[in-house]
Amino acid sequence: MNPSSKINIIEYRNGLSSETSDTVVSEKRLKIFSNNKEVLSLLCTPTMVRELVVGFVLSEGFTGNKTGSIQQEEWCSERIEIFWKDEEIEVNLPLDIPEGIAALTSGCGKGITFLSDTSEEKISEIKDNTVVNPGNITGLYKDFQKRSELFRTTGGVHSAALCNEKEIIVFADDIGRHNAVDKIIGYSFLENISPEGKILLLSGRLSSEITLKAVKFGVPVLISRAAPTDMSVEIARRSKITMIGFLRGNNMNIYSGPERIKK
Amino acid sequence: MNPSSKINIIEYRNGLSSETSDTVVSEKRLKIFSNNKEVLSLLCTPTMVRELVVGFVLSEGFTGNKTGSIQQEEWCSERIEIFWKDEEIEVNLPLDIPEGIAALTSGCGKGITFLSDTSEEKISEIKDNTVVNPGNITGLYKDFQKRSELFRTTGGVHSAALCNEKEIIVFADDIGRHNAVDKIIGYSFLENISPEGKILLLSGRLSSEITLKAVKFGVPVLISRAAPTDMSVEIARRSKITMIGFLRGNNMNIYSGPERIKK
Repeated sequence: MNPSSKINIIEYRNGLSSETSDTVVSEKRLKIFSNNKEVLSLLCTPTMVRELVVGFVLSEGFTGNKTGSIQQEEWCSERIEIFWKDEEIEVNLPLDIPEGIAALTSGCGKGITFLSDTSEEKISEIKDNTVVNPGNITGLYKDFQKRSELFRTTGGVHSAALCNEKEIIVFADDIGRHNAVDKIIGYSFLENISPEGKILLLSGRLSSEITLKAVKFGVPVLISRAAPTDMSVEIARRSKITMIGFLRGNNMNIYSGPERIKK
Repeated sequence: MNPSSKINIIEYRNGLSSETSDTVVSEKRLKIFSNNKEVLSLLCTPTMVRELVVGFVLSEGFTGNKTGSIQQEEWCSERIEIFWKDEEIEVNLPLDIPEGIAALTSGCGKGITFLSDTSEEKISEIKDNTVVNPGNITGLYKDFQKRSELFRTTGGVHSAALCNEKEIIVFADDIGRHNAVDKIIGYSFLENISPEGKILLLSGRLSSEITLKAVKFGVPVLISRAAPTDMSVEIARRSKITMIGFLRGNNMNIYSGPERIKK
């Protein structure tokens, strides 16, 4: 399934219109099934679908058990069945989703994740003594911004990447900011990559939902060129994750956890 | 409730870090109640909350009846009770939400609206013979981009506006692209403004959900400086709404309904 498609459009340039073609990003419905019953659906760019499903399940705690954790042997790539249809993608979860799902969905809304509990006791503290050199951040982000072929051709996606201080380990893009992060989380789980000492780079805004995903993942440093919200900064400070926004060249705003940025 | 707040941050500029203050956009949880039972919650910027709730209910067909319509006398401003709390906003709906809600929520996910039915028969055709001058579009969009005081101070919001060919009638911004559009739809309903002959301006990407909202609202022209997705273009073409993306100065891409743009 192609992550973009070519369509005919009318281009209007300084008073003149002409027919031409344009590459637009692909948006597909992903339906998640458990026991042959559809339990959830979301819209995504059809790349890294396995990673997206695993990352979504993990970061939303949508795992069919009380701990919110899943066993790697049960969630290995082979056990996640993906059916590629013309208009949509269907995925069969390898675990039963019990009654819990009703409770999970009843509080959700548009643009809302299920990770809605921001009460103090639910936000765990990131204990990671990593220290990052600001010069390395600048370099990594430059590399990050060059990576998205899909953004270059369509202008319609957000990106996320997991790095160590030297290089990008995994890169993902998607029409949804949340999906890009979930793809990274899912990949890390499936490939046994620990978030310890790592950096999560994002192209989009740092809303509460994105920050909660990063905290739950356990990555100590979260960086974007875009803005945070007040709720997001509060979550970052409570969890002691390092949050950097407005990264532009050698400049950045440190909203939380400055002790991890080398002076 | 303030749409932004000032916080202390560490600013890093070319190797030097210093303490300073930054204005960040406010993100609040909005809980929607019916019969004293919480039926939905979403995250938003706390402005035009009444309009947001009405627009959300209308554009998601979340109205407690089969037609998906609501009566203005039942939804007049006075009948929507808003409770401003420290950490969140609660809104009491003036109508009972019957069992339907379970069906509505069971299919929803993260970043997903309830408007998930894109089957052909569910997409109505926009019958509106409005013709717009490209020069006017350029002028309106320039004005639109200047309007968001909140974007200038926080860099963290998306905007939407309803216009006629000469001027902006109503402007809204929010941390969520969807919310900004819902605020416009809610305002139009409460103020009895018909979408006929109007233009909907957006700052953000044209995903399927945004386009479905615009089609359901009934506005004939949808314009953004950002990119559309393939699904969104397909919906625009089926509904015969005029969709313009990548508006930059005098240049634009017409993805659907070119007959409404003057040659």
